[in-house]
Parts: sequence; C-alpha cells; structure tokens
Amino acid sequence: MGKLRFDISVSVDGYVAGPDQSLHEPLGVGGEDLHQWIVGLEAWRRPHGLEGGDVNVSTSVVDESQANVGAFIMGRNMFGGGPGPWRDPAWTGWWGEDPPFHAPVFVLTHHAREPLEMKGGTTFFFVTDGPRTALDQAVRVAGGRDVAVSGGANVAQQYFAAGLIDEFELHVAPILLGGGTRLFGNLEGLRIEQVRVIEAPGVTHIKYRVLK
Amino acid sequence: MGKLRFDISVSVDGYVAGPDQSLHEPLGVGGEDLHQWIVGLEAWRRPHGLEGGDVNVSTSVVDESQANVGAFIMGRNMFGGGPGPWRDPAWTGWWGEDPPFHAPVFVLTHHAREPLEMKGGTTFFFVTDGPRTALDQAVRVAGGRDVAVSGGANVAQQYFAAGLIDEFELHVAPILLGGGTRLFGNLEGLRIEQVRVIEAPGVTHIKYRVLK
Repeated sequence: MGKLRFDISVSVDGYVAGPDQSLHEPLGVGGEDLHQWIVGLEAWRRPHGLEGGDVNVSTSVVDESQANVGAFIMGRNMFGGGPGPWRDPAWTGWWGEDPPFHAPVFVLTHHAREPLEMKGGTTFFFVTDGPRTALDQAVRVAGGRDVAVSGGANVAQQYFAAGLIDEFELHVAPILLGGGTRLFGNLEGLRIEQVRVIEAPGVTHIKYRVLK
Repeated sequence: MGKLRFDISVSVDGYVAGPDQSLHEPLGVGGEDLHQWIVGLEAWRRPHGLEGGDVNVSTSVVDESQANVGAFIMGRNMFGGGPGPWRDPAWTGWWGEDPPFHAPVFVLTHHAREPLEMKGGTTFFFVTDGPRTALDQAVRVAGGRDVAVSGGANVAQQYFAAGLIDEFELHVAPILLGGGTRLFGNLEGLRIEQVRVIEAPGVTHIKYRVLK
C-alpha cells in the first residue's frame, strides 16, 4: 500500500486554529492567516476552480502534496458544520458542488448516511465505525496510492496516536496565534526524522517521517 | 544600537524543555535531545574549550549566532541553580572557570551580588532591578554590537512581551516532547516575518524578525 500522509499549516507557536472558534469564524481569531501562503497560489486556486494566481517555491510543495493521493480521510467538522446542518439530508457539506478533492473522501462520523457523489470525481463516504475502518476502506480504493488525512487536528491526532501516520508535513506560517487548537497532543512516544525543508515566501515547509 | 537577539532549540511540538524537570535533569525528560544537532559541532565545542567536532550546514548558523554579540542577558537559573547553591558566595554558576560567553553577561536575579570575573573574558553582572535595566546596561557595554538573550524561556518571554526582541531564531529539532516548557506564552499581539530558513542535518533553522 501507499503511505498515510498528513499536512497542515501551523503557527510558529504551534496552533492550527486560533482562539474563539465559531461557525462564523471556524479557524478562530487570526486563524485565516495560517493559509495566507497558499490561497494566492495558482496550484491551490486551480483545484478549487479558480483562475489565475501566483507561482513560487511553494507551488512544488502543493503539487507534491496533491500528487499520488488515491483517497482522503476527514472529520465530520471538516466535511461541514455542526449538528444543525448535518441533520439536513440535503446538506452536502461546505465544499461546494465540485469539491477540490477529486477522489473518494471518507468522513468520520457517528451519523450513518448514504455516499454523496459530487462533481469532479469527489464522493463522500460516511464511516461510523472508527478511524481504522475508514483507513481500511481508503487504502482499498486508493489502489496502492497514498491516503491523505485532510484534518482536522483531532482526526490527525487519532491517526498519530495509533501509530498509523507514515509521513507528515508542517507549513510553518510566520504568525503567533497565542491560543486555539494545538496540533500535537500527547505524542511524546512518537519518534520522527526530518525528511526535507523548503524555504518559501512567508512560510517554511518541513516534511517529517515517523520512525516505526 | 545593535539588535536584541534570541535563539533557542525547540521541539516540533513547541517545547524548549521536556516534562519533569529537576536539578538532576534540568532539561526534563528527553530535553537533552533538543541539542543533539549542536553538541557534536566543532563550532559549539571550540568556545566550550573542547577539541574536535563536526562541520556541517549548521556551522554557519552557530557562527552567525555567536558573531557580533557584545553582551548577554540570562536568568538566574541559567547562571546556575536553585536557591541552595546561589546563597553560597563561592558558587560561580555551572559554566565552569572559563564560560563560553567571552563577554559581559547580565544575570537577572533578586539577590544582589558583586560582579564575578571569570577566565576568557566572561564577567557575570547581577541585576536586581528588572529586565529593562539589564538591557540598558547590556546595550551600554555592547558598544553598538548586538545583545543576546541566552535564556531561559521565561526571560525571553519577558523581553518578547515588552516588545524588545528584534530578531529570533528557532532551531527546530525533529522530536516530540509531549510536555514541558513551552517557548511562547501569550504573545498573540506580536507580528513577525520570516527572514531565512536553513535545512541542516537533524534540524531546521528559521530566523524571524519582529515587526514594530
């Protein structure tokens, strides 16, 4: 099988979302700045159906993170919202009609639901019996390619804690959020090694491998 | 005047010392690994009076951090130990007879004490009236060169919080400590920009400038 990968933008003080998160401000106060390095990139805009954008050193990093991914795994919140919209059977998440994944996406949830086929090759599958089952299903459809954990941080932490992540990349944004959601919980048992570092405008990309 | 600088080794999960710190294990469990990238370097061993050692990409980073420093500031714990040894007037800290600073060092403390002149150009001055006074004195003797805050993290945080740090460098070690002393406290007001990144064996060096 391929690798189980994870990449995320993180502040210099270790937060993946700022304080005071709400439905109105899901990334918390200041949290949007975590993604400032990527939202102007052509490599990010293209899969989101947007034209134009910049090309810089980060382009190769984004291309690499999107290449060779056969399936994604994400938490319920990342698919779309709290219990309110979730109960609406017409609710298709907040990724729009043509989500940027273009591959099967396995959503961890407690609420069973039929698969949801969107435009552009994205189908959401809802998995109610835990992260290992979601991974098994994702690995099967990925057919030898990698599986990417899209987030959120709590989902990634579950895979880290279970020793299942093979490789992860941090996009360290030059901001201090002072509070919010920390990426790493109680992972002191995890041994890692640095794979490569890329300096780019307004961000540092560091890839690590988990030693097993 | 020169810049007020600070550099420190930090784990991927944001700790500058591990959990369960003690006099026996001042960097906490696993904390020694933060400095694995530097202790084998010739550039580190030389100022510590040790022969031999490696030369690699980190050498230029260490040389740069030691260059153009006219004075150092540190906390009492970094000078040497808890209240026990401190009360002994013969106690000269735990840096040995020939400390690696080779410049005036201003020690923040509540206990007044005469200056302590060591071999090799290091003199410890004990400052009892706060971080700003220590900085004023350090700037005066630095004569236009930079002043470096040596640590610990709590001392650095005081200078960060007062908006006095001009530039800082993180040496991100590929380890997860899972607990201990976090580098950054409540610094969400601080705006920073990335200056440069260096990939080196077993560490990523990232330099930031504080925007004022």
